[in-house]
Amino acid sequence: MKAIVFDTFGTLVDWRASIIRQLAEFGRNRGVSADWAGLADKWRRAYEPSLESVRSGARPWVVLDELHRESLTRLNEEMGLGLTQNDLTDLTFVWYRLDPWPDVVPGLNRLHRDYILGPLSNGGYAMLVNLARFAALPWDAVLSVELFEHYKPDPAVYLGACRLLRLPPEEVMLVAAHNYDLRAAQNLGLKTAFVPRPTEYGSSQDKDLAPDGDWDFVARDLMDLAVRLGA
Amino acid sequence: MKAIVFDTFGTLVDWRASIIRQLAEFGRNRGVSADWAGLADKWRRAYEPSLESVRSGARPWVVLDELHRESLTRLNEEMGLGLTQNDLTDLTFVWYRLDPWPDVVPGLNRLHRDYILGPLSNGGYAMLVNLARFAALPWDAVLSVELFEHYKPDPAVYLGACRLLRLPPEEVMLVAAHNYDLRAAQNLGLKTAFVPRPTEYGSSQDKDLAPDGDWDFVARDLMDLAVRLGA
Repeated sequence: MKAIVFDTFGTLVDWRASIIRQLAEFGRNRGVSADWAGLADKWRRAYEPSLESVRSGARPWVVLDELHRESLTRLNEEMGLGLTQNDLTDLTFVWYRLDPWPDVVPGLNRLHRDYILGPLSNGGYAMLVNLARFAALPWDAVLSVELFEHYKPDPAVYLGACRLLRLPPEEVMLVAAHNYDLRAAQNLGLKTAFVPRPTEYGSSQDKDLAPDGDWDFVARDLMDLAVRLGA
Repeated sequence: MKAIVFDTFGTLVDWRASIIRQLAEFGRNRGVSADWAGLADKWRRAYEPSLESVRSGARPWVVLDELHRESLTRLNEEMGLGLTQNDLTDLTFVWYRLDPWPDVVPGLNRLHRDYILGPLSNGGYAMLVNLARFAALPWDAVLSVELFEHYKPDPAVYLGACRLLRLPPEEVMLVAAHNYDLRAAQNLGLKTAFVPRPTEYGSSQDKDLAPDGDWDFVARDLMDLAVRLGA
């Protein structure tokens, strides 16, 4: 194994708490009150259907930033938030500033001594570059789906990453907190590691609480994964 | 200015000394003697015509590793070196292990505090990723021409980099030791900085000894550039 790539939202960063925090800060600064946790959850619930519209071919490729902005624009109307065009632009970029789970930076730094590391994420390239600077993620290779113009779990993403790294799939491992993502990678010959993030969606999360496939590694967190890999 | 991108061969790494050193090491290990400096220079002289065959459309896109291997295969025959297929494969990857000029790592680390940094190079993606690990280059964004399937100075490369970074050209600066590269970038609205590398091609180098355009910065080396930028 030469390279380890990581799902990002949920697996590496606590998007939900980070988005709620930034929305609430925005509200305090602007004197706007709203159900920010509710907005964060609705915004994220719009993610899957919006990706699906691209995956299905119903609309041409568009980067996640644009989908985020469209969804927020719709929620602004539905929830009567009164956000301006400038607000919508600014808030779209809260996704560039997400806090990593506590094990992530030490775990990645340990793995980085022995492996090529990168995100393999549905986030856009600029988002992943800026997020890495914000969260101090030690990437060698930012593998955004934007480079392939397909969203996970399309095979073009996993195979495209291997091709750019010039590695056969069996020398690349995907780490994810989501079983569907690992399944797609495993079907193409990549190695797989599951790391549970049972509060990604808040305290009432009901999916991906446990591994449901024959993954190469199941680790408590990234430090535990580094130990298992002898890194 | 938000991001600084760097030409790599010559501007950041001393490819000539690094290639000669590795070829001579190979020769010693294998008991083969040859004019390794001559081979390095002929190999690099094959670079421009091989790129031009892709730029001109005479052949479809192919990554630099393949062009390097083809040129070495031809030189092996012309010079009667007796290299095997395995040797040709191994030696193609000497381009993944090139030493940076002495100012490069300290200069980049200083610039990295204030700017998004990345290579903007005709090297393939895997080459640039491995070279960064070998030479400890602190990249945020590896911008290989392989992502655009065009070689510099094709506008698609410079504009593609700005698009992926989600920045307008005037917020991106190219640093290069080659005037032709800066000219292409400036024509598209990027900022430009010239850093001379007067021994890139050895002691008898006769081109790019001085800036020959109206570049935004002319710096002695990357430390000097960092000082000029107040980084």
